[in-house]
Amino acid sequence: MEELNVTPWEVSGRLDEAAYSKLVQRFGASLIDDKILEKIKSYTKDLHPYLKNRLFYAHRNLDSLLDGYKKNEKFYLYTGRGPSGKMHIGHLIPFRFTKWLQDKFDVHLLIQITDDEKFMVKEKLTKEEVERIKEDNIISILSLGFKPEKTHVIADYQSAKTLYYYATDVAKKVTVSTIKAVFGVNDSDNIGKLFFPSIQIVPAFLLSALSGERYNCLIPYAIDQDPYFRVARDVLPKLGFEKPASIMSKFIPALRGQTTKMSSSDEMTGIFLDDDEKTVKRKLMKYAFSGGRDTLEEQKKYGANIEVDFAFNSFMTLEDDADKIDKIREEYSRGEITSGEMKEIAADTINRVLEQIRKNREKVKDDLDKFMFDEEKLRDQLKRENKG
Amino acid sequence: MEELNVTPWEVSGRLDEAAYSKLVQRFGASLIDDKILEKIKSYTKDLHPYLKNRLFYAHRNLDSLLDGYKKNEKFYLYTGRGPSGKMHIGHLIPFRFTKWLQDKFDVHLLIQITDDEKFMVKEKLTKEEVERIKEDNIISILSLGFKPEKTHVIADYQSAKTLYYYATDVAKKVTVSTIKAVFGVNDSDNIGKLFFPSIQIVPAFLLSALSGERYNCLIPYAIDQDPYFRVARDVLPKLGFEKPASIMSKFIPALRGQTTKMSSSDEMTGIFLDDDEKTVKRKLMKYAFSGGRDTLEEQKKYGANIEVDFAFNSFMTLEDDADKIDKIREEYSRGEITSGEMKEIAADTINRVLEQIRKNREKVKDDLDKFMFDEEKLRDQLKRENKG
Repeated sequence: MEELNVTPWEVSGRLDEAAYSKLVQRFGASLIDDKILEKIKSYTKDLHPYLKNRLFYAHRNLDSLLDGYKKNEKFYLYTGRGPSGKMHIGHLIPFRFTKWLQDKFDVHLLIQITDDEKFMVKEKLTKEEVERIKEDNIISILSLGFKPEKTHVIADYQSAKTLYYYATDVAKKVTVSTIKAVFGVNDSDNIGKLFFPSIQIVPAFLLSALSGERYNCLIPYAIDQDPYFRVARDVLPKLGFEKPASIMSKFIPALRGQTTKMSSSDEMTGIFLDDDEKTVKRKLMKYAFSGGRDTLEEQKKYGANIEVDFAFNSFMTLEDDADKIDKIREEYSRGEITSGEMKEIAADTINRVLEQIRKNREKVKDDLDKFMFDEEKLRDQLKRENKG
Repeated sequence: MEELNVTPWEVSGRLDEAAYSKLVQRFGASLIDDKILEKIKSYTKDLHPYLKNRLFYAHRNLDSLLDGYKKNEKFYLYTGRGPSGKMHIGHLIPFRFTKWLQDKFDVHLLIQITDDEKFMVKEKLTKEEVERIKEDNIISILSLGFKPEKTHVIADYQSAKTLYYYATDVAKKVTVSTIKAVFGVNDSDNIGKLFFPSIQIVPAFLLSALSGERYNCLIPYAIDQDPYFRVARDVLPKLGFEKPASIMSKFIPALRGQTTKMSSSDEMTGIFLDDDEKTVKRKLMKYAFSGGRDTLEEQKKYGANIEVDFAFNSFMTLEDDADKIDKIREEYSRGEITSGEMKEIAADTINRVLEQIRKNREKVKDDLDKFMFDEEKLRDQLKRENKG
């Protein structure tokens, strides 16, 4: 049996429902249940499809963060991306979901772009390449439409003065042993990789540190990033800050099968944001792993296995209309939609969203500066807000 | 027998002449010999007392740096200080010597102040304390009178954007194993301490990195700092830079005996820059470990053991007049000067120098900004210089 190993730098083992449950147990998190969905809904009125479909399926302290919100405790959102290559549609998941949360709660959002990490961890990646990828990724992320006045993109090298200052507070409290145990690294790894978690933990308390006020922090992320925030939960109280709350997603299956995640570095593992209409269709029709049955009769009789179906999961990732998702899921599960039809539906949705992103990218390019983190500007802004 | 252990974070074992020789061998450096002193003298005309007296006693690649200088290769100086407490007279050694080198060769000098290191390594030190100590130390160092237009103080937190950017180049090439082997740290140490060497190595190639031109780098330092620069010599060629050249000093004996070095954190281990005239006298008369003999007769017969004598070594550290040092050494060695007289001589020299530092400190305070490292300013300056 293949061992399940999920860290920021390695995902191996078969990621099925049983594996996701096991990870939640192993990481000491909680499953998203109906009770907490009701609590979310009491603020947001509706539920994002990712919640309904349990793509975001686990959390830590989300309930107490929401209870605090009721008592007027401030919170902010924090998510991020490691710019190792161009983005595929799976990479949009935390950002699409975070945008929804920002829209619903009207809160600050920190987006960390870990160019330093990718440079140090990827043997062959040069600083020039990572710089180019970083820009491309930031533009793609912002093309989803975050609130400019409340969204702060922290690109690590660019914001290193602030990050390093606070990272040393974290680093002072974290031993080499801890990093080895939590991240599965060892003595042959480089010292940058070992230190880096202290950089990724900073945004989890940065608003509190800059303002001197208490902010809770909610971090949406894919489950492989959990090691960072387990360490954060251990360290932050020692620095006088709140433990951050987490909400964690599964991965969607890779193009050619469900046992791994899509990868920035392999063109054929997924659909990328710069794939044109024809490429999207070709990848779906020709390569997409299908949960449909081998014959039309079987498909009609047993329906599709949705969990492993690339087309359905891509469609579900990019479709905003929760009712439409429900309808297609039912019909496809029941075998009323064929595998080929499912691919057509997915292609339509994907191409519509990618077209929109491409359009928005052009606008975002001119506005980039507005979104970039600026310590002094943010300090001033928080001061003004907390006075009001 | 007490084991000899000399790293930036621990100095233990008896530091006598034999020990210093052993360190040079162990670290793979070379002793300063007459041949290299002649080479230095061919440029500087005279020799600093620290060289004559072999307080700076070992080096690496100093000969090839000087040969390069003859062929118009550019070089610069780099030294620094970890601001863990107030400075004692022993701390002046690398700075007094570096000032002499800067005066003789008219070259750029980077002075790194490792506030980040001290914060991460000293369990109880707060950021507020280290900030206060940092300022005090910078002012003391600059009161020695470096060339404002060619002296750049890199305070790590303040210059973290530049330092971290280049430190990741270093960190990517250094494994945890290497740091463990060279610095004697282990898994129970914090990840900041492990990463920090990549920050201290940056100034050893920073002028080359900022200018795109080839600069050699000469680093004067006390021997306990050698681990950093052994790692630097390994890494820099991999990044396309020259190996730095080193010139290393012994420690002068601590106030109460020669088996250890003076310490910032223990008032009674040395004479501090803010000790007033009376304190200096009192410390010397009452506590200073003497190499003089037990009786006046023995002193006249055998003379003093200079190696272990606090008063003589303090005097030698702060006296600029090489002839006077020679004279006093001879007379004291021969027993023509008593231990009490030696202490008087030392008190006079120390108080004269400390008085000058106190006076200069006031002037320096207003000029501090001029000396602080500014990446853009330095880039421009180097560009102008390299055009001319």
